[in-house]
Formats: sequence, C-alpha cells, structure tokens
Amino acid sequence: MPALSPVLAHIDAQLDTSLQRLFELLRIRSISTDPAYAGDCRKAAEWLAADLGSIGFDATVRATPGHPMVVAHHAGPAADAPHVLIYGHYDVQPVDPIELWTNDPFDPALREDREGRKVITGRGSSDDKGQLMLFVEACRAFKAVHGALPCRITMLFEGEEESGSPSLKPFLDANAAELRADFALVCDSDMWDRETPSICTSLRGLVGEEVRIRAADRDLHSGMYGSAAANPVRILARILAAVHDDSGRVTIPGFYDGVEETPSQVLQAWQTLGQTAESFLGPIGLSVPAGEAGRSVLEMVWARPTAEFNGIIGGYTGAGFKTVIASEASAKVSFRLVHQQDPAAIREAFRAFVRERIPADCSVEFHPHGGSPAIQLSYDSPFISQAQDALSEEWGKRAVLVGSGGSIPIVGDFQKLLGMESLLVGFALSDDRIHSPNEKYDLNSFHKGQRSWARILHALAGRA
Amino acid sequence: MPALSPVLAHIDAQLDTSLQRLFELLRIRSISTDPAYAGDCRKAAEWLAADLGSIGFDATVRATPGHPMVVAHHAGPAADAPHVLIYGHYDVQPVDPIELWTNDPFDPALREDREGRKVITGRGSSDDKGQLMLFVEACRAFKAVHGALPCRITMLFEGEEESGSPSLKPFLDANAAELRADFALVCDSDMWDRETPSICTSLRGLVGEEVRIRAADRDLHSGMYGSAAANPVRILARILAAVHDDSGRVTIPGFYDGVEETPSQVLQAWQTLGQTAESFLGPIGLSVPAGEAGRSVLEMVWARPTAEFNGIIGGYTGAGFKTVIASEASAKVSFRLVHQQDPAAIREAFRAFVRERIPADCSVEFHPHGGSPAIQLSYDSPFISQAQDALSEEWGKRAVLVGSGGSIPIVGDFQKLLGMESLLVGFALSDDRIHSPNEKYDLNSFHKGQRSWARILHALAGRA
Repeated sequence: MPALSPVLAHIDAQLDTSLQRLFELLRIRSISTDPAYAGDCRKAAEWLAADLGSIGFDATVRATPGHPMVVAHHAGPAADAPHVLIYGHYDVQPVDPIELWTNDPFDPALREDREGRKVITGRGSSDDKGQLMLFVEACRAFKAVHGALPCRITMLFEGEEESGSPSLKPFLDANAAELRADFALVCDSDMWDRETPSICTSLRGLVGEEVRIRAADRDLHSGMYGSAAANPVRILARILAAVHDDSGRVTIPGFYDGVEETPSQVLQAWQTLGQTAESFLGPIGLSVPAGEAGRSVLEMVWARPTAEFNGIIGGYTGAGFKTVIASEASAKVSFRLVHQQDPAAIREAFRAFVRERIPADCSVEFHPHGGSPAIQLSYDSPFISQAQDALSEEWGKRAVLVGSGGSIPIVGDFQKLLGMESLLVGFALSDDRIHSPNEKYDLNSFHKGQRSWARILHALAGRA
Repeated sequence: MPALSPVLAHIDAQLDTSLQRLFELLRIRSISTDPAYAGDCRKAAEWLAADLGSIGFDATVRATPGHPMVVAHHAGPAADAPHVLIYGHYDVQPVDPIELWTNDPFDPALREDREGRKVITGRGSSDDKGQLMLFVEACRAFKAVHGALPCRITMLFEGEEESGSPSLKPFLDANAAELRADFALVCDSDMWDRETPSICTSLRGLVGEEVRIRAADRDLHSGMYGSAAANPVRILARILAAVHDDSGRVTIPGFYDGVEETPSQVLQAWQTLGQTAESFLGPIGLSVPAGEAGRSVLEMVWARPTAEFNGIIGGYTGAGFKTVIASEASAKVSFRLVHQQDPAAIREAFRAFVRERIPADCSVEFHPHGGSPAIQLSYDSPFISQAQDALSEEWGKRAVLVGSGGSIPIVGDFQKLLGMESLLVGFALSDDRIHSPNEKYDLNSFHKGQRSWARILHALAGRA
C-alpha cells in the first residue's frame, strides 16, 4: 500500500499549478446547449484527454451524435486492484444574463469574497469542471509521488449533462464492457455545509403519469346541465384528494410495498444535522411539513415516498368567469420512490386506483412519463464507511450520510446499464450559484477536495 | 270583457299580412355586437316604434350609450286594468359563417323544411324578432276588433340582448317609475316540444367565486421538496373534493338554507314529461346523473342547487412533464341557487369552508364573480294558472310548468330593479338553430303564438 501523506503533501505543494490547469479548462466556453459552442465543447474534451494522457491515462475523445465523451483508462497497481469509474461533465450552463456577472465568466481568477474567503470565479468553476479536476489532480499526485495509482481507474467525462445527456445512455449501452467497474464515484454534489462533508447514500426514484378524464362529448352550459352532468374537474379533484389520507399517507393499495423503515441510528444521525421544519421550509416561505405525520422533514424527502400533483388543468382558466362544465380535465402526477418500490407496480396501482373512481359514463386516459427505481446504498456497505472515515479525517468533522429527494439520472443509468453502485461525494457549497451569474468554487473546496479524493482512493484501494 | 273569438279570427285572417310585417323587420340587419350595423339597429328600433304607433301606442325610440330602446305605452280599457310590461329584443346574432346558410339570412321567406312544415327562414326569425312580433300582432288584433286592449300595456324592446345588455340596467334604473308594471311577459324561450307549450316558473340564481391558493413563495423542485412542502394543487383538490359528499349533496354548512322541497304534484307533472336520465344525458354522451341521489335529472337542474367547478389550473400544464410543485393553484367555482338561497350567505359559507381547510402556512384569496338569487314563481299563482289554461286551450295539450337551470338576467333585473315577477312563455323550438346558420321559426309558432298571447292577455285581463 503506497503511503498517503506524501501524496497529500504533493497536492498542497502543487495547489497553484493545479489552479492554473483548472483556469485553462474554465476558459473554454463549453456551453453544451448552444450549437454555436460545439467547437468549444470539443476543445474542452480534447484538453481533458491531453491532460489525462500526460498523467499516463489511455485517454480518447469519443464521438457521439452530440458532444464527445472523454474516456480514459489507467491500470491499477495489480490485476486484482479495485476498478473505479469516475464520472464528471465538462460542459457548462449558458451565462445569460451576462450583465449580472461581476467578472467575465470565462476569465477565471482567484478572488476574495465579501467574507474574505478565497474563491475561484467563473462559469463551471463549481459545476462541474472544478469538481471533476479534483479526481484528475488526485491521480496526478499519486503518479508523481508513487508512479502508480492506488486503484484501476476509468474516467468518463461527458459534454451534455447540462442539456439532458441525450447521448449518454446509448454510449453506456454500446460501451458497457469497457466502462463497467466495481463502483462509480460521482462528484457533482454539495457538502452538507461549509465544514461538513457528506456522502449521498440514496436517491428517490420517479414515476410520472398524466391522467386525462373525459366526461360529456362537448363543453356544457353549467346552468343547463349543472348537477345532472358529470363534471370532470370534480371527478379529478375527488381522485387526487383520495390519494392521501388525513395523515399525509398515500392510500393507493400496495404503494408502500418495498418501503423500509430507516434504521434508527440513521434517523438519529439525521437528527444531529439540526435540520428542522423551520430551517428547511422557512427559506421557501413555509412552516408546516406536508408529509406523513410523525416524521422529520429530512426523513420525508430522503427516505419516504411521495405522490405529488405537478400540474392540473380543466375548464375555463382565463380572465373572468365562464359558466362551463368542461368535457375533460387532466393532471400530471408524479411519485418519488424509495428503497424497493417497483415503478411499474406503482404505475399500475395508481391507474387501478383512478379507474375504479371513474363514473361509468366517463373515461380516462393515461400517459406515462418516465419511471426509475430508487437508489439505496446499503448503510453498512464497507466502501461507504471507508469513504466516510477518509472524509472525516480530511475535514476534522464526521462526514454525514445524507439522502437526496431527487433523482440523478446518471446514477440510475450506472445501476441499470452497468450494474454498478455509485458513491456520491461533492464539495460544492449551497452558495456556489451554479447555473446562475457569478458562479464560484471555494479554493478550500478545490484544495481539500483533491485531498479528499486522494484519501478516498487510498482507502478504497485498501479494501481490495 | 271584450270577446276573444273575433280577435283570434282576425289573427287567422291577417296571418299573411302579419308575416309581411315580420319580413320587413327581419330584413333589417340589426346585429348589435358589430358597430358596423349600429345604423341598422337604430332602423329596427324606429321601425318598431312606427309600427306600434300605428296601433295607437305612445311609442318612442330612447337613446342609450349603446343601441336604443323602444318604449311604448298603451292605456288599458279602464284605469284599474292590470298593467303588463312586455319584453323582447330586436337585435340579432352575427351570421358567420355565412357560407353555411342555405338562404340569405336577411332575405326572409316562407319555406318548407324537409318534413314539409312551413318555416320562416332568416336571422332573428326565432330569436327574437319573430317572438316579439307575436305581442305586437296580438295587440293589433285586439285594437282592430275592439278598438281597445284588454290590459294596460308597456312594451320594452332592447337592442343589445345579444351583446350583453350593457345599457339595460342603467335604463331600468333611470326609468323605473315609467316601466314598473304588475308583471312582465317575456317571450324569449322554447316550447317543451312541438306540441306542448310551457311556462317557465323558476330560474336558478348564480354565485361565482374564484379561489386562489398560495403555498411556497416560489415554484419548487418536487424531488427536493416533495412530501415536505405544501402542494397547493393537493390542497385545492382536497377542498373541491370535500364540497360534495358521496351522494352528490353539497356539504358546505348552511348551503341548503332556503331550499324548499318541490311540491309532489309538480314533481309528478315533471315525471309525465318523459324526460329520463337517458334522454337528458344521452345526447351529450353521458348516462349517469351526477347530482343528489334519488332525484330526477329534471329536479336536479330545475329545482336543486349545485356547486360546479368551472375551471382549475395549477403547476405545469404544457406538453411533457415538469417535476414542479407549484406556488399557487386556482379554481373557478360556481353555485346555482334555488328558492330562497341567499347569494351573499352562500359566498360567505363557501369562503369559510375553504379557509378552514387552508394549512397554516398557506394563504387563500377570493375573487367574486356575479351573484344573483333564484327566481321562483309561486306554483299556485293565479296568473300562472290563467296563462296555463289559456295556452292549453290554444294548443289542445296541457301547458307544462318547467324550470330553467340557468339564469336569464332580465328576469332578475325586473325583480330586483322594478320589483316585478316575470312570466316566461315562448314558442321557439329546439331545432330553430338560434345563433347558428339557417335560423328558422315555424309558421305554426308564429301563428299560434299570436293566438296564445291574445288568449293570455285576455285571461289576465279577466283577473283584474
């Protein structure tokens, strides 16, 4: 096992030159959503491939129907060393409205923020060029000090993350054998707070359904027909209202199949994070948790499934009033799933729930939108506890295991297409203004982030 | 009491000349909604005033901010004769799409329909020039035969009925003393069927409310906040769903205050009309009555109040899917009222019902739209039974007392502004295609309609 401390010392000593490399990458205007910048996207991919090549990776720029992928392989210290896939993206968001930027978004620099902290400014500094370079720099330090990496490493950097990743799934499918590793490291997320590193151990799945209810064969005058004719808005409202009981629990039969109770020690750990209904909901102008009674807001969004109504429309919705009974009404409904909930079963259970509430003279139509299961890493997985220890040593504060209420498609794709779990660790901060003007990345994140990944790679290697 | 039969004989003998007079009026393009026809509207008003003047009415064309009113007075046979206000409108709907007319809409003629029935074709033949001329011709016949009218009569013909009657209320207000009569006769409605005359004895009132629920101070990502944050679409759906119980009854406290049970003989009479759920709902593609269980469809729409949801909107309603939790959702809700239900009390009861279902961290806003009480003539009013007898004699079939699920604003205005009840009798048929191309009025309606009003005026005079 190669020693870690000289690697960390090398990172410290080379911080300035690593910063210069990041600046080079940040200067490339790799805005993926705007075709005018296709050349810049290719340039960023080529820059990365060249840089990885300089560390000894077998790095290639791979064409896709959209922007290219960068794929780079490096052997481990031994044939049986663990194999890690590292994922990041080199494309960035557009910079509009440009007039709100204090500095040129593509002229990165180290500046001081109002609190006197050193920050790297520029588009992509946090999302995701700054974060992906942490891996590259950690590998560079290992190579410089030991001439080898602690694990076998494959890097996959895409250039379409900010524009829906249209080429990613086909690429994973076509190159599954080449990309499959023991697990993936994904660095596109936040720290819990400025002092506390975090590991995301769960992501909720998602099932979307559009429901369209049809009643009369035309819009009706509510005076002539009101009370005698079926009103699809009323039918829809009654169905949606029946989805939750008074305690906030979803009533659809079988909905909770596969949902596990979160271990009490995990709940206790979440408790210590100090997130309250007030602190969670206050910033958005709310105060009363709307989920299942008796559970904390963190448990609600990280570990409990939900049914949400994302849109509803029916009848006259313009200015003023029209005494009409609509012929149809529709709603977009989504379910966030946890643990072992089966997206297909949830979809069918919901459809059955709706169908049995449709009057005999009305009809219903469903349009599916997406369906992905939840991701749940095992709380007692050794590689989580190793990463947790490594992070805790670096930051001097115990790394927390958090969940995410949302879905990160790449994690689901890695699981589904490559049969691979992902460890999500990131050093972005909630004030990094990603996707907004004046994006920044703390120098502290950039520095300790490199050291964190060096520690994690070192720890994971010891696991083999 | 002047004899009726020579009056009826005179009507029969003069049918052709009365038809020519109607044709003259029908040729005037009095489309009120299109300013290009303002001169035609005035011409129609002047034509009517001149014709009424020729029968001995004191007839004037009265300016309004819009199209003029025609007001005409004729004394009764004695100072204590009943005073009747007769209402109609001389304006007509536009004729688009003109290419769907078989004949020129403003070149009226007597034609045969496919079943061999004689019909008067042209815009306004049924709505409402044909119907208002019935009164004029009935009066003309009385004058020709007896030199006098059986009652004191005031005629009020407006020219803005098809464009929202903006000048009517101010005109009634400003001329209340002149226009107030013992009751009004309104001829702008249908027969029950081709053989059966009807009298409308009730109109439902209307209360409209727009409800807007606000939750978070911005739209939220349903992954990050779903289940913890209040969802206004869910809150709104639960409120609307609570408005009706499973039997279709409205649950708002106090909602049924002032609602009376319909007398069993009236329900029995309605039963004999042969209107079933199937015959009422079938033509609009429905079959299951949605109102209070155990009541007929006619009772539902004529004699029971209802809560209807006329529109709902919230969240993402475009194509595809967006996993958003909206910051607000809104619905347009209307109540049709019967009997003594108080619009203001209903509005307040609904608002209270909504408010107590709004979570502590959300807010609600209401926007009122209209509010008018129901109109309910007394089933044992002598003037109804006199009109019913008169109609039954003319048509050889018992005239039926019907209700209307909708509201006819003029009737509410007469009640509110002039303290006057209205008798609604009309001879239009459901196949008259009013507001559509190829509008027609059956010659039978035009002929027996004149005779019917002569009979009714005669019967009402006998009541004094």
